[in-house]
Amino acid sequence: MSEELAFLPVAGVRLGTAQAGIKYRDRDDLVAIEIPAEGVCAAVFTRNAFCAAPVLVAREHLAAGSPRYLLINSGNANAGTGESGVRDARETCRFVAAAAGCALQQVLPFSTGVIGEPLPVRKIVSALPQLIESLDESRWPSAARAIMTTDRVPKLVSRRFELDGHPVTITGTAKGAGMIRPDMATMLAYLATDARVTRSELQACLEQAVAPSFNSITVDGDTSTNDACVLVASGRSGAPVIDDRASEAFRALAKAVTEVCMDLARAIVRDGEGATKLVEILVEEASDEAEARRVAYTIAQSPLVKTALFASDPNWGRILAAVGRSGLDALDITGVRIWLGEVRIVSEGGRDEGYTEEAGRAAMAGPEIPIRVALGRGRATARVLTCDLSYDYVRINAEYRT
Amino acid sequence: MSEELAFLPVAGVRLGTAQAGIKYRDRDDLVAIEIPAEGVCAAVFTRNAFCAAPVLVAREHLAAGSPRYLLINSGNANAGTGESGVRDARETCRFVAAAAGCALQQVLPFSTGVIGEPLPVRKIVSALPQLIESLDESRWPSAARAIMTTDRVPKLVSRRFELDGHPVTITGTAKGAGMIRPDMATMLAYLATDARVTRSELQACLEQAVAPSFNSITVDGDTSTNDACVLVASGRSGAPVIDDRASEAFRALAKAVTEVCMDLARAIVRDGEGATKLVEILVEEASDEAEARRVAYTIAQSPLVKTALFASDPNWGRILAAVGRSGLDALDITGVRIWLGEVRIVSEGGRDEGYTEEAGRAAMAGPEIPIRVALGRGRATARVLTCDLSYDYVRINAEYRT
Repeated sequence: MSEELAFLPVAGVRLGTAQAGIKYRDRDDLVAIEIPAEGVCAAVFTRNAFCAAPVLVAREHLAAGSPRYLLINSGNANAGTGESGVRDARETCRFVAAAAGCALQQVLPFSTGVIGEPLPVRKIVSALPQLIESLDESRWPSAARAIMTTDRVPKLVSRRFELDGHPVTITGTAKGAGMIRPDMATMLAYLATDARVTRSELQACLEQAVAPSFNSITVDGDTSTNDACVLVASGRSGAPVIDDRASEAFRALAKAVTEVCMDLARAIVRDGEGATKLVEILVEEASDEAEARRVAYTIAQSPLVKTALFASDPNWGRILAAVGRSGLDALDITGVRIWLGEVRIVSEGGRDEGYTEEAGRAAMAGPEIPIRVALGRGRATARVLTCDLSYDYVRINAEYRT
Repeated sequence: MSEELAFLPVAGVRLGTAQAGIKYRDRDDLVAIEIPAEGVCAAVFTRNAFCAAPVLVAREHLAAGSPRYLLINSGNANAGTGESGVRDARETCRFVAAAAGCALQQVLPFSTGVIGEPLPVRKIVSALPQLIESLDESRWPSAARAIMTTDRVPKLVSRRFELDGHPVTITGTAKGAGMIRPDMATMLAYLATDARVTRSELQACLEQAVAPSFNSITVDGDTSTNDACVLVASGRSGAPVIDDRASEAFRALAKAVTEVCMDLARAIVRDGEGATKLVEILVEEASDEAEARRVAYTIAQSPLVKTALFASDPNWGRILAAVGRSGLDALDITGVRIWLGEVRIVSEGGRDEGYTEEAGRAAMAGPEIPIRVALGRGRATARVLTCDLSYDYVRINAEYRT
């Protein structure tokens, strides 16, 4: 846990961490992120109908006004906890508001961990003084570690670009390794920038960034109850305000935020529970994007494809079977081509004439495996990132609560 | 392999087996099922767009007239093999027709095994004399074993009922343990009866039987390219002909065929690759059957639910998360209730008040785990059978081609 994590602090955004002893021993499990009074905040949340209590409260508090603190705990998801879960989440916010001197609704709560157990409010409250005390712009690495659950590595990414001569910084952290098939944002991700930007432009920027990143990854197809991604802008960069979606400045910010999200999303898949391979699935020549995503996710979530990837076995028949069952109307299989890396394995409805098992094995040998499928039906594309399915996935998830 | 398999022979239906050495050593891997000249035959096939060459040929031959022989090999799926695969399948039929003295189109081919490798036609042809020679009404157990691939146990079921004083027999065998999420019929299943029945009634009977059985099971969500289920009627029972879908006799036959299919479907799931638990998921109070099936399959195919089942861990939050992500419009989570066996675990959007971890553990301890979900939206129901996800699933599928 002592390796250096490279990052750029974001002026005006302070982070604190503390040890509340919720589930994990001998490590921090509580994070606060402080947003300056003039800062703005955008967020996206899970679309799981059983969304967790903190998601309900965070959405409500975000709508009410200008957040000053994000409160994040790991080890307990406060999900499936009904009305009392909502009361507990609000209670933790109330204590943070009291300790930090802001309104209850200026605190947004987030939780990640086991579903269905009551949130240990008292443990969290006891750790608040330490948490507030530790607030500092330099504590991104501690925060990245404190939000981890089954993650093997902390995930922290920074970008800097220039706007009218002012450097603008974006730094983000994320956690997540299982129950990953985000349908809005991944498990938990927090980004901050010192750009000056209006709230609606900040929200647009975040939504653009999550679509190709957190919303295009899957580890196991299970959408979490607690997904949330928050982007904070402190406005301290000195660069002019971004208030126009058509402006050069907006595009520059959106590009940088997207890059940070893409890097974090890749880091999540690379750290997927039990993952040994990073697999990028590109589906081309679909009639529309929905169709392209459907085929990409069918491949990405096939246990048979994933176990073959784990074994580095070019068992392309499983990819072909996944394409075949993905439910496309009137698919002409003779138009479908499939590549592993640069090796074309399928054409004309069967094994490509030039394909050799040796070439297939070589394409599967590395830690990153690109799969490309051309459907021959149109011009839409989709890209999905996933990982393989290994013994360790089963071990981690069979033992999770023991 | 020496245990006795109980079964009832079907008058007029003979089976042969032989060792062609396609993939497996020291065991039979080739089966012929002979249908008497006056018999009729019904079948359902996979809906996977990349359906295998033998499926294409069997469909065509079935449409052409009255089948006399089913030819089945294990060890090679003849799928993803394009035009040459179709030629190979037809070639094996031609040799069977020559050896048995019938028309080419009276032979239906079926294959199961590795996808994408050329069918070893010569090996199959060499074994045909032994195959034809061995034809006998008593060889159901040998046939049940010869069609196995990753199956651990042969699957063979019989039923007998009485029609106008005549006993009518139905016997069926099936294979399948992985790539199981049938979308028409399971991997391979062959049933025969001595009932006298018209072809259209026989087809109707089969379609009724596969809906709640083979079409309601999943091991890994991967629909095979080779699924086929065939029902043969020899007409030898002496009972009157069944030619009316509204008749008592049709209902009796459909009931018995359904029972055989249900038993075989349960046997497939119980033998699911790496399976240690049989899990029956019942979804009730859905607005329509499609919705009920959607929720049931989302639970049944969740790797997180399946690993929790493997661990006998009542991690009901994962079931709740699966219901929440199954994409129901405007789901009111307070109306959802979930049971593990008789233990109610979820109500009012959270953990049921009376739930205890001990009760949950007890409900998970046995080899069969019933999960019941009531959605509070209507009156439709669906039932899906599945199994858990274990280390052995990963091992079997990572090592399959090695």
